[in-house]
Amino acid sequence: MRVLGVDPGLTRCGIGVVEGVAGRPLTMRAVGVVRTGADAEIADRLVLIEQGIEEWLDAYRPEAVAVERVFSQHNVRTVMGTAQASAVAMLCAARRGLPVALHTPSEVKAAVTGSGRAEKAQVGAMVTRLLRLDAPPRPADAADALALAICHIWRAPVQQRLDRLQQAHAKQAAGRSTAAAARADDSTRATKGTRR
Amino acid sequence: MRVLGVDPGLTRCGIGVVEGVAGRPLTMRAVGVVRTGADAEIADRLVLIEQGIEEWLDAYRPEAVAVERVFSQHNVRTVMGTAQASAVAMLCAARRGLPVALHTPSEVKAAVTGSGRAEKAQVGAMVTRLLRLDAPPRPADAADALALAICHIWRAPVQQRLDRLQQAHAKQAAGRSTAAAARADDSTRATKGTRR
Repeated sequence: MRVLGVDPGLTRCGIGVVEGVAGRPLTMRAVGVVRTGADAEIADRLVLIEQGIEEWLDAYRPEAVAVERVFSQHNVRTVMGTAQASAVAMLCAARRGLPVALHTPSEVKAAVTGSGRAEKAQVGAMVTRLLRLDAPPRPADAADALALAICHIWRAPVQQRLDRLQQAHAKQAAGRSTAAAARADDSTRATKGTRR
Repeated sequence: MRVLGVDPGLTRCGIGVVEGVAGRPLTMRAVGVVRTGADAEIADRLVLIEQGIEEWLDAYRPEAVAVERVFSQHNVRTVMGTAQASAVAMLCAARRGLPVALHTPSEVKAAVTGSGRAEKAQVGAMVTRLLRLDAPPRPADAADALALAICHIWRAPVQQRLDRLQQAHAKQAAGRSTAAAARADDSTRATKGTRR
């Protein structure tokens, strides 16, 4: 499974591609950052981010894209830009029919370090070890993007099982409501019948 | 001047097209809403919003796009979706080389009603009067999109004057810093020269 992780941001959008399956050693395919200048208009920055992500998707053809889930509680000053950059990443992936997964920062930290409240440096150190790199990828956004991809590969089997359960449950519920609707329909017709 | 206004939202993205110039009666060209289902994945909703906005841009070929500027102070629960929908609107416009303007809700309210703290109904009533409509456009998101377009048309002359002033100022500043850099460069060379 090849996953492209995106740590969204207007100034620096971290991108990392990791390949492998849960339970086996993982391999880093590429890591980098899409940058846009703070002096440019926000609309133009979003276009540059779109172009950058498209190039990464073309070059590495991932099977899934994992994006950091943005919370508005974070840093109020940067959160809007982060949300907007993440929208572009999700759009690029979904437009190609690629599955998009959102993972929260604490899910990612917990996956790679064992603690949802781990420090940045600890995440970088674990990414380095797990992908057998010589040094932690820089900047931190690049390391975070790799951590997201790793988190996604490890969570994927659990997530798939959850999705299957949910689908089965939704199908059952739909079956029940169709039956209920049919009953309601019958009774409406019956009522109309008596009124006619 | 033909302006397409966007009141961004994941569930309802209001869109309105207004034509005219400041100081003359304005004309509504079209108004509507791009909707996406709350049960769909967010990435897929962004793709639907992109398709919807592209259709509006194709159909009405505006010269500029005005998008509501999203603040994170708003409603914390919906603000992320609003920011993401606004990113898609800005992206669609900028990708076509269209100028994108952001106006805050209070700028829009102040422009059409005279008060930055006007009620929704008051905005709807003024939009109806200014565009000589029979009734306020529904839902409110559609009326807000028209108000954004009106606000943009009225602010455009002022904004253009400001932009020209800013550009002239930036050019002057760049001229000064180039001169300063040239002086610094000279002194570096001079220093090197004495050391050689």
